[in-house]
Order: sequence, then structure tokens, then C-alpha cells
Amino acid sequence: MSLTFEILAQDTRSRARVGRITTPHGHIETPVFMPVGTRGTVKSLTPDELKAHGVHIILGNTYHLYLQPGHELIARMGGLHQFMGWDGPILTDSGGFQVFSLVYGGIADEIKGRRPAHPEAKPHMVKITEDAVIFRSYIDGSQHVFTPERSIEIQKGIGADIILCFDELPPFSAGYDNTATSMHRTHRWEQRCLTYHQQNPTNQALFGIVHGGVFENLRQESAEYLSSLPFDGMCIGGSLGADKDQMREVVAMTTPHLPDHLPRHLLGIGDVDDLLVNVASGIDMFDCVSPTRLGRHGTALIRDRTRRWKLNVNNAPLRADTGPLDSLCDCYTCQHYSRAYIHYLFRAQELLGIRLVSLHNVAFLISLMREMRQSIIEDRFAEFRYEWLGTI
Amino acid sequence: MSLTFEILAQDTRSRARVGRITTPHGHIETPVFMPVGTRGTVKSLTPDELKAHGVHIILGNTYHLYLQPGHELIARMGGLHQFMGWDGPILTDSGGFQVFSLVYGGIADEIKGRRPAHPEAKPHMVKITEDAVIFRSYIDGSQHVFTPERSIEIQKGIGADIILCFDELPPFSAGYDNTATSMHRTHRWEQRCLTYHQQNPTNQALFGIVHGGVFENLRQESAEYLSSLPFDGMCIGGSLGADKDQMREVVAMTTPHLPDHLPRHLLGIGDVDDLLVNVASGIDMFDCVSPTRLGRHGTALIRDRTRRWKLNVNNAPLRADTGPLDSLCDCYTCQHYSRAYIHYLFRAQELLGIRLVSLHNVAFLISLMREMRQSIIEDRFAEFRYEWLGTI
Repeated sequence: MSLTFEILAQDTRSRARVGRITTPHGHIETPVFMPVGTRGTVKSLTPDELKAHGVHIILGNTYHLYLQPGHELIARMGGLHQFMGWDGPILTDSGGFQVFSLVYGGIADEIKGRRPAHPEAKPHMVKITEDAVIFRSYIDGSQHVFTPERSIEIQKGIGADIILCFDELPPFSAGYDNTATSMHRTHRWEQRCLTYHQQNPTNQALFGIVHGGVFENLRQESAEYLSSLPFDGMCIGGSLGADKDQMREVVAMTTPHLPDHLPRHLLGIGDVDDLLVNVASGIDMFDCVSPTRLGRHGTALIRDRTRRWKLNVNNAPLRADTGPLDSLCDCYTCQHYSRAYIHYLFRAQELLGIRLVSLHNVAFLISLMREMRQSIIEDRFAEFRYEWLGTI
Repeated sequence: MSLTFEILAQDTRSRARVGRITTPHGHIETPVFMPVGTRGTVKSLTPDELKAHGVHIILGNTYHLYLQPGHELIARMGGLHQFMGWDGPILTDSGGFQVFSLVYGGIADEIKGRRPAHPEAKPHMVKITEDAVIFRSYIDGSQHVFTPERSIEIQKGIGADIILCFDELPPFSAGYDNTATSMHRTHRWEQRCLTYHQQNPTNQALFGIVHGGVFENLRQESAEYLSSLPFDGMCIGGSLGADKDQMREVVAMTTPHLPDHLPRHLLGIGDVDDLLVNVASGIDMFDCVSPTRLGRHGTALIRDRTRRWKLNVNNAPLRADTGPLDSLCDCYTCQHYSRAYIHYLFRAQELLGIRLVSLHNVAFLISLMREMRQSIIEDRFAEFRYEWLGTI
């Protein structure tokens, strides 16, 4: 068995639960947030810093690692753990999300409901058939082919503890019929991934990905179909709607159809409020680039709902502010540096500023998840959500 | 007494010596290399990383810190130590070097003999009188005035343990008469710095700066004049000639005229061979931006004289090289990461690459100085130089 999942506590007033995933590279306490190391590095941070701040698992992007430095090289170097110096659990996505992002431009934003399809979408960059997806590299324009089998083969070369099925990402605007057609093809691809995985056994866990867009009967059909296959865990993927409310509805309509004994991963979501609300819907695992992306742009996460938990460190009032980014945070940044110094580092465009805010943001979400787990164990998760959100 | 200097060992076959400087923020073992934190941060690194790798003292640039965030703010934040979180010794320069760089474009390169005066030199950016230097900010073009007294006042606000006199930096091409005229004005400015320093006592040490360009009698005159004043240490500054050989001649002709009981700082020099040769001439202190600047550009320092101690981590043969940057180095980077991974980080333009190579480069020079001190103590410094340089 490459992965086990134990449920340690079940909230009595929501679907939230606390669990422990065991992988060949150690335990993961759930609900968990995993920082994203797109290209074999959680941007600007070392594995030691992540570990010291309670990170249990990180995510790597197969699409990027396949194009550069290539999964063969990573395999030759002993796998991604060895290559990047992270000895804890790793999850890789299948590459599907990034490949299809090329078609629709900012599909990430669109799927999360932040904006409509990119006006400069480049359909010629990707060709989809029943068998494969043909796409061009964002680095040099060279042509590449992904099949479900190829995605799993690449992920086996990279060597993550948890790998994901290759799926098609239809845009939110696809409509019911196109979403259903795409979902059924994705189901066939996931079956092919599973078969290839079973025929080429490794010490890796394979997760399925539920599709069906915003349509409840499709989400149910997808969840039930995938539950009939021997996956080690379930992701919720595909279009999650036009806004946060619809995304939360999609999650809430999907989790009841997923088996309780498997961990559930909501792909690509990481805002403070989304973490709280979706844990209540039964999500166990999250990933998002937001803590490091916000860090690079000088936005620090803080315990202040009235600011949507965000502080722009470039703001002038921080110039002589001797306090830490967040007064309750025990991360390295908050224990050593003032807002004034971090403000100055960003004004002076010094790299250390990016490091310090990225580290703080990761630590902030890790702490939030730790506190969330504790509140579930102590049967006060509803009160905990209310403290953070001001609403249930 | 704000600074004491003990000589612990004197080489029998050169002017090299091992010593210990004591400051209000701790000891400095000499000969010492200090990394440069131009703007209150040694680029991309934390003070904890510097300390863990044996850094005893860092240098801050008064010109940059005065313009941004300003010495008043730094003073309000408790001084530079507190502001940047470095509790070891700090040295600030006087701002003179950067101010005059504006006149001559790349004066740093010119003084070090690497290239002639910049063709786009901007004399209109700076106006020099007997009393003051008027210059414009590189950030917003605003006009500022430095006098010797003002430079010391600013350095007292920043609060470094060691501060430097304000001096004029004539170009290498100045010729004998202009160099002598400039030197005599600098002497008057240094006397004014000393007077202001004595009238406004702080727990800081003030170093004089020997001038005189490449002319032996001027260097001697400057060294002897400044030795008659109660400075706590001596820098060798001004034009150091057209190339490395001339720079080394200038140093060798100057140190015999400096008092033995004061530490001697050669400003802005940090190449491996220059450190070895100038320690033999009696230099105790060095600073240079090179380890972090090279690090940002992907050049790692290595123990390989045939490559001038430099390795371009972007080189294709490193792609699958599982060894560390330097096989004898015990820095964090070399203990945790392969050349292959660092090569990849630079190819992928990931910030962690800059961090890892910058840290290695700093650690490399710190180790070199530590080994140099040990070889002097053990009376085998000549052999040590030969091992590194292949020549004496």
C-alpha cells in the first residue's frame, strides 16, 4: 500500500474531519495546505525553511518539470525529492491544467471565477483528440504530446508520493453538453491512467479527479464513477464556477458523493475564507501558489478580516511601523523583522523582502490549518470559522 | 574606547598578521573579509545565514542608506543593527565613493583598473567645493549636500561600529598634480571628520583613509599625516591603479608607512588572489560586493586556480553533475544541493539559485580567510599562498 488515510476526528456540525495520510516520505496531517513548488522549488524558500514552519507536503507541476529540466534528468538525479532536497511527501499534478491553460489563456483565473476567458486565447497551441493532447512548449515552441499513459510515465519519473490522473480542462463557458462530453472523455483517460499505473507498479498513490463543471448531476455521476475505481484519493477539478460562491456550491454538492475513506483534494484553492468554508464541506487537501505569489508582490497575509486578510507591505503607513507583519504569528519573519524593514526592502526592491513575506505567507496558512485541525478535534470548528469569517 | 585591536600572530616571511578587533557588537578575527550589505541587506541572505557561515562583520553604504530609507528613520528604528536584525559589528563607508561614482560613471571599475573612465560620465551630477559636495539622488534626481561633518552625522544616525572619513575620489587619470591637490583637500576633510566625531562622541570607531593615487611619495605623505591623528584604524582608498599589479604595488608601498597597532582596511577589494597577496602586504580587513554580485549572475567561487576560482553554473556540463559547487566546501549550499540542481535553478530563473550561490560565495571567502589566519598562526602562510596561487 503506497498510501493510507486514517480519520482521527469528525466534526459533528459539518463534514469537516481531521485525518492522517501516511506516505513513503512521511505523514500528512489533514486538513492540509500544500505550498506549490511549480518548478522544483517553492519560490525563494529552502526545504529546511518549509519544514521548520510545519509544511507537510508540497506540490510540483508535471508540465513545467517535464519541459525543464525533464523527467528523465530528474529520475537520473534520484527523483524530485533528491534533486530538490525535500525529503517529505510530494504531490504532482498531471500536466493537464497547464496544457489547457495554453488554450484559454488565463484558465486558472477563469476556473476560479475571477475573470472571463482570456481574449488572446491561443487554440492553435493545443490540439485535443480522444487519444492525446498535442501542445507547444512555452519555453521554445517545440511540439509535445501528452497521453494519459505518458502523463503517468512522466510522473513516475519525477517520483512524487501522490500523482494525479490526466484530465481535460474545459472552460467554464463550455455549457452542459460540452462539459458532459469532456467529462466522459476524462473518465476514459482516468481509466487509462489507472491501467497504466497498475501495469507499472511503483510506490506511488494515484488520485482520480472529479469533473462535471457546475452541474450537480454531472458532479454526482463523476464522483460515483470514479469511486468505483481503486484510486487512493479523489481530487475535485475542472471548472468550479464563476465566483467563490459557485465554487463553494460545487464543492458542497460533490463531497457527499465521495467515499469517506479517501482523502479529498480541492485543486488550486488557497484563500483564507475558501480554506475555512471548504474544510467544512469535507475537503482534506489544498494547494495554491498564492502565498508565494502574494509574497513576491509584497502582499502579506494577516489576521484581519476587514482587509480580506491581506496587507500591502508597500503602503506608506508601514514606513516606521516597528511591529511584525502579524502580531500573533510565530514565523521566522515575524520573530525577526519589523513591518518597517520589510516595507523598506520592497521599496528598495531587495530580494530578501520576497523571501521574508513568502515565508510568512506559507507559515500563515500552515498555522491556519493547524488551528483548524485543533478546533475540529476539540469540537469547536463552527466557533473557529465564526472567529475568522464573522459568519457561518 | 570604542575599538581595540590586538595582534595575535605576525608572519615571519611577510607583513601578514593575525589579530582581533573588539567592537561594541563583538569580535572580528583578522584578516577578515566582510560581505557588503549596501542597502541594509546582504543581498538575498539573512543575518542568521551570515552568522552561521562565520561572517564577523558586514559593510553598509551610507550613500544608499541616506537616500533610502534615510538615516533619521534608521535611527528611529534603533539603528541599523536593530533595523536589519544583524547584531554583529557593522562598518559604514562615508558615502564619498558612491557620490563620486556619479561623476565618473564606473569609478569602481576604473579605480580597480578594470576599464577606463565611463564614456557617459556625468560631471553635472556632482559639484565639489572646498566645503562640500553637491550631488543628485540616483533615485529621484533630488539635490543633496554632503560635507565631512554631514557624512559623520549621518553615519552616527546609522550607528555602525566602525565609520569612515569622508574623502574625495579623484579618477585614476587625474595625474600627479590633481591627485596631490585632491589628497590635501581630503586630508582637510578627514581632520574635519575627526573634529566633528570628537565633539559628538558616540561608541563608534573612526577610520582614516589614505590617498595619494599610484604615487609612492604621496601615499607615504598621506599615511604619515593620517598616522599623526588619533584614528582607530586606517583604510587604503583612492585610485589603486590601472590593473591588479599596480593595485598590489600601491598597497605594498603604503602599508610600511602605517602604524602597526591599527587595523588596515583595503577598500572594495575581494578577488581570491587579491585577498592572498594583500594580506601578505599587511592588510587586515577587506570588503567587496563580489560574492553576492557573482552569485546573482550565477558564478560560483571554487577551489580551481585554472578557472580563476570561478565556475559559471549555467554551463551545460553541469546539467547532470551530482557533485556540490565545491567539493571541499562545508556551506549549506554545498551540503544540500548538487551542481545539477543549481544549474537548473538558474536556467529556470528561480530566486533560490541566487540565494544558494550567494551564500556559497560568501562562505567560500569566509573559509579562505579562516584558513589564511590559521596558516599565519602556524607559520606556513607562504606555503598556503603557493597552494592557492601556484606562485609566491
